[in-house]
Amino acid sequence: MTWTLDLGDLDDLARGAALLGTGGGGDPYIGKLLVAEAIRANGPITILDPEELEDDTFVIPTAQMGAPTVVLERIPSGAEPELALAALERHLGRKAGATMPIECGGINSMIPLVVGARTGLPVVDADGMGRAFPELHMETFSVYGVSGSPMAIADERGHSVVIDTAEDNRQMEWLARGITIRLGGVAHIAEYPMTGRQVKDTAVPRTITLALQVGRAIRRARETHVVPTDELARTLSSTLYSNLRVLFEGKVVDVERRTTEGFAKGQATVQSAPGQPELKITFQNENLVAVLGGKTLAVVPDLICVLDAENAEPITTERLRYGQRVRVIGISTPDMMRTPEALATFGPGCFGLDDEFVPVERLSERESASI
Amino acid sequence: MTWTLDLGDLDDLARGAALLGTGGGGDPYIGKLLVAEAIRANGPITILDPEELEDDTFVIPTAQMGAPTVVLERIPSGAEPELALAALERHLGRKAGATMPIECGGINSMIPLVVGARTGLPVVDADGMGRAFPELHMETFSVYGVSGSPMAIADERGHSVVIDTAEDNRQMEWLARGITIRLGGVAHIAEYPMTGRQVKDTAVPRTITLALQVGRAIRRARETHVVPTDELARTLSSTLYSNLRVLFEGKVVDVERRTTEGFAKGQATVQSAPGQPELKITFQNENLVAVLGGKTLAVVPDLICVLDAENAEPITTERLRYGQRVRVIGISTPDMMRTPEALATFGPGCFGLDDEFVPVERLSERESASI
Repeated sequence: MTWTLDLGDLDDLARGAALLGTGGGGDPYIGKLLVAEAIRANGPITILDPEELEDDTFVIPTAQMGAPTVVLERIPSGAEPELALAALERHLGRKAGATMPIECGGINSMIPLVVGARTGLPVVDADGMGRAFPELHMETFSVYGVSGSPMAIADERGHSVVIDTAEDNRQMEWLARGITIRLGGVAHIAEYPMTGRQVKDTAVPRTITLALQVGRAIRRARETHVVPTDELARTLSSTLYSNLRVLFEGKVVDVERRTTEGFAKGQATVQSAPGQPELKITFQNENLVAVLGGKTLAVVPDLICVLDAENAEPITTERLRYGQRVRVIGISTPDMMRTPEALATFGPGCFGLDDEFVPVERLSERESASI
Repeated sequence: MTWTLDLGDLDDLARGAALLGTGGGGDPYIGKLLVAEAIRANGPITILDPEELEDDTFVIPTAQMGAPTVVLERIPSGAEPELALAALERHLGRKAGATMPIECGGINSMIPLVVGARTGLPVVDADGMGRAFPELHMETFSVYGVSGSPMAIADERGHSVVIDTAEDNRQMEWLARGITIRLGGVAHIAEYPMTGRQVKDTAVPRTITLALQVGRAIRRARETHVVPTDELARTLSSTLYSNLRVLFEGKVVDVERRTTEGFAKGQATVQSAPGQPELKITFQNENLVAVLGGKTLAVVPDLICVLDAENAEPITTERLRYGQRVRVIGISTPDMMRTPEALATFGPGCFGLDDEFVPVERLSERESASI
């Protein structure tokens, strides 16, 4: 169903996007401010259900890329992703009929909405990651045969770079990352130009709606004094993300974090009580694996989310701090993100992890998580 | 005068180009092989005198960029610069009527000839550096108001990147260098697209001819048993490069060299006799400054060239070795490269040197060089 997104939806959407960002995706708070400004100036945004998209509509996804740690210090004006879209349209000699997110997490749930509000383009309710991932080839578009190239990168001065690596989406990521680093660590992009048919065949559907549902569930739980993760589990059970497991609860006792090679990389340690086994969460922008005393509780591409233990507010990797009381949850990804092709693109081995992918719902059958 | 370059010219041209490269510009031997192959396949190349260029001819210079140390290990096929030209033509929607060198040194005297032979385009007898420099904004085109953007970078797989930083040629260099590093340290480019009028207003004229004259002078000296630097000085006295000074003669006793940030950077030490003051030559791809016992003998943008003491063969920075007997010479650059605007772009301060620019002919009046 095609629907309209307005100012009143933004708090819930940002909260849900932060959770689906699994620690990464860039700060959704900043994105929310940009969307709010764009809606106030231009009116509400049309969210287009992928099934209602014409096969021949030309869709250009838009996003921010870079290290989330840098986004906190270098806030975009809102014009940059539109400049990237315009640079790609100019290069292709063809106008987009819609934009959409490349990932449904953090600021990248918001960037296409900013573009939609500013240009009047509808935003397709779907994305290419079904969560957030750190690299541009880690998209279901790529897994299922769409070329990311040509892609455009733009900065706030109107400078642009167009990269064309034909079918090689990994090389596109490699070159785009180099440019993003030289632009100061954050840039805005337009990539994976494709038809409506390709969107329907390769995107994870209705993830803007999903983010809203997740955000609303957390709010509802707070208002009704229900345990937020119970409310979340109920909400997710009827979606493509049907399994939620509480993995651990405790205090953040250590965060090691470096902004390196254009990413925020590191590890967080969570302790339930002194002397007890500690939960280690390794991240590259996003949370990749959660290990308790040598046992893996959840691993990428399943979602690992760190929530405030009190109010279930999602905590992004760049905002993790010593002393935070947190509840760590695992959520199953949709089946299309667990196929052999998908795991070859964004499974544990793609991040240098030794783990085999095992679904979070099976890991939690094997091991009873200490809570 | 427009003339034709054929196989018989290539040895002299490569030798002259190596000298004008002032230690950098990439290995001309590899470039010579590429041009010879292209001429054998396609016939001789038309060299177009800049004064005979129509004002509205569309000229796109072509070149290789990267660290000369890498070129030795990663030899191009010859197709790459043509792919860069084609990528820029496609982006602009306009075909070039001629190509030309961006620098008259090393391999970059040869790359546009490869393009000329392969495409049939004439090659303008002029360039944008009057020697070799390590960075893309260090061109007389840039000094006198031409935008380097849009520029294209291509690799051997047909991948391409188009960079558009509007008037900001330094930022163009910064982004292009990042891409070149990620392409393995060497790439091929098409940049500073401009009119024939702009070529005439901003290029250093007749530097392909100059390289040929220099290469021939060295050969002639060898054949007639004349001191090569005397023969060279005679040849240069009637050109825009009218002053040659022999700065030092001795043995290379140390070479410190790193391939870093996409450049070959380092320092060579030359000794005339044990216990005597040593000549230190600092380089960033090209030789930047020659200092003898604390006294500067020549500094960028004047040319500092290291020649084999016996046969005056030019030695590039990546081929400097312990034990080589060398004669180091300084050559004055044309006046258009010594203006305040020019020195602000490629004077000593642009390379982090503390030296003020003083012409080599005045430095040699002040100090009598020890030979």
